[in-house]
Amino acid sequence: MSDLEKVLAHIDANLDNALARLFETVRMKSISTDPAYAAETRACAEWHARDLASIGFASSVRDTAGHPLVLATDHEASGTKVLFYGHYDVQPADPLALWSHDPFEPSIATQPDGSKVILGRGTADDKGQLLTFVEACRAWKAVTGKLPIPVTILLEGEEESGGHNLPGFLDETKDELEADVAMICDTGMWDKHTPAITTSLRGLCADEISVHAASRDLHSGMYGSAAANPNHVLARIIADLRDADGRVQIPGFYDGVPEPSKELLDGWAKLGFSEKEFLGEVGLSVPAGEKGRSVLEQTWSRPTCEVNGMFGGYIGDGFKTVIPAVATAKISFRLVFDQDPHKIRAAFREFVRQRVPADCRVEFTDMGSGRAVTFAVSGPAFQKTLKALSEEWGKEAAFIGGGGSIPVATLIKEKLGLDVVMAGFGLADDRIHSPNEKYSLTSFHKGIRSWARILAAL
Amino acid sequence: MSDLEKVLAHIDANLDNALARLFETVRMKSISTDPAYAAETRACAEWHARDLASIGFASSVRDTAGHPLVLATDHEASGTKVLFYGHYDVQPADPLALWSHDPFEPSIATQPDGSKVILGRGTADDKGQLLTFVEACRAWKAVTGKLPIPVTILLEGEEESGGHNLPGFLDETKDELEADVAMICDTGMWDKHTPAITTSLRGLCADEISVHAASRDLHSGMYGSAAANPNHVLARIIADLRDADGRVQIPGFYDGVPEPSKELLDGWAKLGFSEKEFLGEVGLSVPAGEKGRSVLEQTWSRPTCEVNGMFGGYIGDGFKTVIPAVATAKISFRLVFDQDPHKIRAAFREFVRQRVPADCRVEFTDMGSGRAVTFAVSGPAFQKTLKALSEEWGKEAAFIGGGGSIPVATLIKEKLGLDVVMAGFGLADDRIHSPNEKYSLTSFHKGIRSWARILAAL
Repeated sequence: MSDLEKVLAHIDANLDNALARLFETVRMKSISTDPAYAAETRACAEWHARDLASIGFASSVRDTAGHPLVLATDHEASGTKVLFYGHYDVQPADPLALWSHDPFEPSIATQPDGSKVILGRGTADDKGQLLTFVEACRAWKAVTGKLPIPVTILLEGEEESGGHNLPGFLDETKDELEADVAMICDTGMWDKHTPAITTSLRGLCADEISVHAASRDLHSGMYGSAAANPNHVLARIIADLRDADGRVQIPGFYDGVPEPSKELLDGWAKLGFSEKEFLGEVGLSVPAGEKGRSVLEQTWSRPTCEVNGMFGGYIGDGFKTVIPAVATAKISFRLVFDQDPHKIRAAFREFVRQRVPADCRVEFTDMGSGRAVTFAVSGPAFQKTLKALSEEWGKEAAFIGGGGSIPVATLIKEKLGLDVVMAGFGLADDRIHSPNEKYSLTSFHKGIRSWARILAAL
Repeated sequence: MSDLEKVLAHIDANLDNALARLFETVRMKSISTDPAYAAETRACAEWHARDLASIGFASSVRDTAGHPLVLATDHEASGTKVLFYGHYDVQPADPLALWSHDPFEPSIATQPDGSKVILGRGTADDKGQLLTFVEACRAWKAVTGKLPIPVTILLEGEEESGGHNLPGFLDETKDELEADVAMICDTGMWDKHTPAITTSLRGLCADEISVHAASRDLHSGMYGSAAANPNHVLARIIADLRDADGRVQIPGFYDGVPEPSKELLDGWAKLGFSEKEFLGEVGLSVPAGEKGRSVLEQTWSRPTCEVNGMFGGYIGDGFKTVIPAVATAKISFRLVFDQDPHKIRAAFREFVRQRVPADCRVEFTDMGSGRAVTFAVSGPAFQKTLKALSEEWGKEAAFIGGGGSIPVATLIKEKLGLDVVMAGFGLADDRIHSPNEKYSLTSFHKGIRSWARILAAL
């Protein structure tokens, strides 16, 4: 029996212990975007630092102006040095009423098809995913006393809230983070049978805008029509952002967005992606968005503009005939290729300002940004990871694009000069950022085994 | 000393007791639109029934399918029989953070100009106003042992939440409500020196619309642009409701809306209304709404469309890259002259349906309606009330229009065949429906004295 076989057997035998640790982390409400949970977020960082120390890493909690990071190293082995990144913070759980169970009390459930899933906020994004890597390290240490290669683990606590303190941390800690390649486990499989490495991600530019008018809420009977209504002003701005064909109307928005190459489109066509199934799973049937572009093309190679939240006036039960003093929208742009988030933000704000009428003013809040990123897949780390994933899952792994944004991938490339291998085990129906988030038990189990193989292969 | 003089002196001497009773009612959170306050709303009705019984009215709480009404009669005297209407329910207090004090713990404050005001939710709308009438009755009873004329008092508990049960109650209780004229104290003075009778009110048609798309909230990275976003759909609908010149775009919306007569416009021009002061008081300076029409014309004779509330997606602190499953707006129309609320609602819903794209559906909820109303001012009740008000305030009272909606005025005219004299003592800066609602102490004091005079005059 090879070391790797022993490690895999150890993983199988100790899955319940790994699950118990995942449950512990899910119970910690590390909701980074909400200041009310700052203490629980820190507690989660401290838990990880202790856990990593317990398996032999030199680990510490690193303070920032916001939530802390966890940095842990085990450099006893020689060979390809890996910097692993994960994030221990999670999205808010609201709307709570739509959860079928307590989001922070994890459990195992059996799906209608007989498969088992782990329920709870952060099980897929990213607590369960990051633990697949940690558990693989734990198994190697338990079986052989050491890791096959030198490993540095960096866990962030602000991924879901703008990641404002990460760039500075990467600059300051550049020497400690030195490595040959970076790995991130925060992406998905192609489908539940096919593992995948995500080789491109969209960037993000997020802004909050508040349109202010009167100095207080007004009675619509006394002031209706005579006083500017921020709800109408905001609706007009939002309506103007996209035309009837789904194209974003901000001047210069598509600068740096090439048409996807024929090779790329051909490769995506071969994946056998079903728009009908993709949309059908969430109760939809008609692709929205840019006319004449497929769903894959839209989500992997086209930039978007989405209003993620908007509110103004009375939003409780019943009715209140009020003209609000302020209306607010949270708007994000997914960016591709060479789109510059700073130019997009400036152009967006100018677009908004031009639509703010007399007597109104607008306030902007920067909610974070990151450029899109693409990695060449010819490097040995990509090929070895692809091979190890294919062996574990018994099916050839795929190189795929990604519609989401993981700004840290761009930052690691820019600031540390490293390629980033993004291998993850999420599934399309994991409901990350939504009520009833889950993580497949198979993803967790075979994810740990996959990393055990990847560590050996590198 | 005449009876009236004695009554006025009694009012002056007992103002503190009247205030204490007002404070008691303001402390009761009779928020009719929020089911959580149903018990406190009923408690407020019971308080009024007991209070009216204590001064000799035959009073009772009348149940409805919603909140109860209070009906009280004192028909010992002969003469013009008056039906007085007020409402004991109040608007919600949110946003609570904008109140400088507890909205349900009333107090007296001194304004920068030295005048005194009563602070608290409902002090002006309508608890303080309705008590001006009750306190005038109390004073007459205390001084002379009886009222100068027969009086019926009807207090509603659903004025701020659609008034759904009032029409049926008026039908069923028609005989008990028989009178010569109706009086309502739920309107304002022309300015703080000039009392007024409001002779026209706008109607109202309120609807809530919810645009639904996916079966759950989606991650905007995975589904952005490919999945319909209800926030964008709703914003487009709202943006289309009014054109750049402020005209409502719903087909047929202006049917039954004549241009105001030259006499009316000339009369309003003489009031010396300052748009600059009216808007300046709430931090605005530029009239919005229909181009080419004055603020008075807009708020007294033109219909409006206002989005009173809208919300969709993540509205907490921070950011969440979500595509919501649903977005909602609360929209109301102020109606004038012969506009039919039912036709307006049907035309609005058709307008919305035409703008709901494939894969989305829309739900509507009727939030109440009422026609506009206008009363001829030549009748004796109007002329006697005008004279009594002028005598109390030492300045000629005005007949004015009103921008708000008091559906009960229309109902009383239609169902009971009565003219309605709307005399009230609210001021433009009372912040009704807003944080920090107040009622002028002078309005309360001289309001009571005014009703004492009006009761005598009739």
